[in-house]
Amino acid sequence: MKTSSEDAIAYNVVPFAWPKGYQSDGIHAGLREGKDMGWIYSEVPAQAAGTYTTNQFQAAPTKLTKQTINIKHELQAVVMNSANANSVTGDQGMIDAKKVQQLVANKLNIEQQLVGVASTGIIGVPLPMDIMEHGISELELKDNTDVTKAILTTDKHAKTVSVQLTVENKPVTISGFCKGSGMIHPKMATMLGFVVTDAKISDGLLQPMLSHEVDSTFNQITVDGDTSTNDMVVTLANGAAGNTEITEQSADYPAFVSAFNKVLSELAKDIAKDGEGSTKLVEVNVKNAANHDDAQKVSKAIVGSNLVKAAIFGEDANWGRIIAAIGQTNAKVDINHTSVWLNGLALVDNSASANFDEAEMKKTLESNTITILVDLNSGTATGQAWGCDLTYNYVRINASYRS
Amino acid sequence: MKTSSEDAIAYNVVPFAWPKGYQSDGIHAGLREGKDMGWIYSEVPAQAAGTYTTNQFQAAPTKLTKQTINIKHELQAVVMNSANANSVTGDQGMIDAKKVQQLVANKLNIEQQLVGVASTGIIGVPLPMDIMEHGISELELKDNTDVTKAILTTDKHAKTVSVQLTVENKPVTISGFCKGSGMIHPKMATMLGFVVTDAKISDGLLQPMLSHEVDSTFNQITVDGDTSTNDMVVTLANGAAGNTEITEQSADYPAFVSAFNKVLSELAKDIAKDGEGSTKLVEVNVKNAANHDDAQKVSKAIVGSNLVKAAIFGEDANWGRIIAAIGQTNAKVDINHTSVWLNGLALVDNSASANFDEAEMKKTLESNTITILVDLNSGTATGQAWGCDLTYNYVRINASYRS
Repeated sequence: MKTSSEDAIAYNVVPFAWPKGYQSDGIHAGLREGKDMGWIYSEVPAQAAGTYTTNQFQAAPTKLTKQTINIKHELQAVVMNSANANSVTGDQGMIDAKKVQQLVANKLNIEQQLVGVASTGIIGVPLPMDIMEHGISELELKDNTDVTKAILTTDKHAKTVSVQLTVENKPVTISGFCKGSGMIHPKMATMLGFVVTDAKISDGLLQPMLSHEVDSTFNQITVDGDTSTNDMVVTLANGAAGNTEITEQSADYPAFVSAFNKVLSELAKDIAKDGEGSTKLVEVNVKNAANHDDAQKVSKAIVGSNLVKAAIFGEDANWGRIIAAIGQTNAKVDINHTSVWLNGLALVDNSASANFDEAEMKKTLESNTITILVDLNSGTATGQAWGCDLTYNYVRINASYRS
Repeated sequence: MKTSSEDAIAYNVVPFAWPKGYQSDGIHAGLREGKDMGWIYSEVPAQAAGTYTTNQFQAAPTKLTKQTINIKHELQAVVMNSANANSVTGDQGMIDAKKVQQLVANKLNIEQQLVGVASTGIIGVPLPMDIMEHGISELELKDNTDVTKAILTTDKHAKTVSVQLTVENKPVTISGFCKGSGMIHPKMATMLGFVVTDAKISDGLLQPMLSHEVDSTFNQITVDGDTSTNDMVVTLANGAAGNTEITEQSADYPAFVSAFNKVLSELAKDIAKDGEGSTKLVEVNVKNAANHDDAQKVSKAIVGSNLVKAAIFGEDANWGRIIAAIGQTNAKVDINHTSVWLNGLALVDNSASANFDEAEMKKTLESNTITILVDLNSGTATGQAWGCDLTYNYVRINASYRS
């Protein structure tokens, strides 16, 4: 599988809209204040792929969607709710998730095994099935994008992105949306991400493409180091664009992968930026690593360090914490020739202070986006990760979530 | 090597004091306000062992002390300073650490290779050698315990413990002290711990005993998931008690290991309790694990979870986060029969809410010590870890440490 590359840009980011052949809705079912339930529907069964949490306490809807996609690698609808994760809810949790799947299949008059189910919210509370049932009865097939709001919990805004490109002379759209703000440290995927496209893709290609691109996007973000029980990214491709089937040999395949990666990475960054309590997006780029794994590991260690995160909140150029975070990994590091830049300003030069101008550094630390570049001087590989700062608000939000 | 056990208690915890044959001092050298430099001295060369940080950016004094102990497995003095870690200070850092070692050796009229050096504080700033040199000239050999204060940084109090036991009819004392409050997630040792005893121990036994006991004590605490560059635990045994040499075959060996473990575990718990910004000590005990490693991993995952820590600060019985933290590990977990107690009250019963009394649970969450017991229902092994809550003060302290 080829790696996606920003160089191969042959797509345009466009205002968020559904690709051809999809309809949707988002409503207030009564699980909490505001919109809390929604679905997305494809006019024909779509090719489907998913990545799921590695947390051993995998939630019932996550487990059910995985089982369902594995049957035919097709879905025609995905129903979602927020406020209740239907996680650690025992046998009843799976009974409830299947009941939701069945109600949606009945209402849409499609096979039950074409319906995915996704839930997010509090862990350990049974799904209130009367509210779920009533909500499903209210869902319609519309052109709105309210579902992108209905899945939010502590998120401050809906996270959406659409890109368009041309595949074999046909316009193709890839649209993704996701939620996630706390308990974000995905190991295989993150808390509810959905990517739908009208492209037609050759059988068996969607899943490896998704897994590969998730690794360099959703799996490279962290908000708090905690991996959720409900993490799931699902992608649908319904072929409504009418393009000649995309294969790994297609001339437009690299562009499609690049566009697909763009959707995932924009969503992933948006989750990091909207991390619980955050005031700043932190992007870490690592260069001259011995290999890609090392570069990914080091970049994620830096965005994952509570001390680095707190220093960035405090707009303090505490580079010793960045160095300590790098050194905690088992990546190959040239410990005498490691250099670090922050928003383009030299911070560490060959493992010593770069004698930066404190006033200039303080000024750039006021930015909403902090970009850290690390040179490991150990090879030629690169890697990237995203996170956010650690703030009083993170503590406030999480000291009182349940009660 | 036998495992220590609380069952084999044949020691007494006594008021803190040095064992026979040790002298000490702690002074204000001028590195910061208050006491900032100290030493401990044994009247004769003592057997010595150490464990050191696994952070790749190992600080110069940590590296030098490791090299020094490895020469003859003996030390006669250890000099310490706070406020400056002499870490990531390049070649000059090692030159400075050796100079400190030499100055102390000259002053005490002992071989340079009998002097350990330990520093803690800000990373990346050269050691002010004029202050160090003047400070060393002021150090004396006294009976005071001021050195236990001189090594503190953001710690709220000195961390000390002494135990006494009888070995082959001779009274033996083991006294330990340490510092550590932030950047605490030891992988081989923690930020500056010292344990001195007047026991005589057979050659080659001290190092494996230290390494083994550090694994179940200092290596099982976490404050913020960040591993320092300066972590080090050093132990000295000078034989001044006059006991018959302790071997693994000695009748009193299990008691000695138990007493030694007591010193390490009390110090480790004290670090966790005094974690930056903390209001509560969190102790996690895991039982019925498939093996000891699994039990240690699960207990450390729980005390390491930002979400669990924030919930405990908020006195919120958010058990879903405990379950999510357990599930993030690769330990063998009976996902349908995992149970959790908090301060003895049932919280999770067979992977479902134990339907606890909210008022009663809220009341016990007000305690300064939160003890969580987890039953994995997967074997017979046990494990233990310690941490603290995540608070506004942690963020405040770390948003403004450097500037």
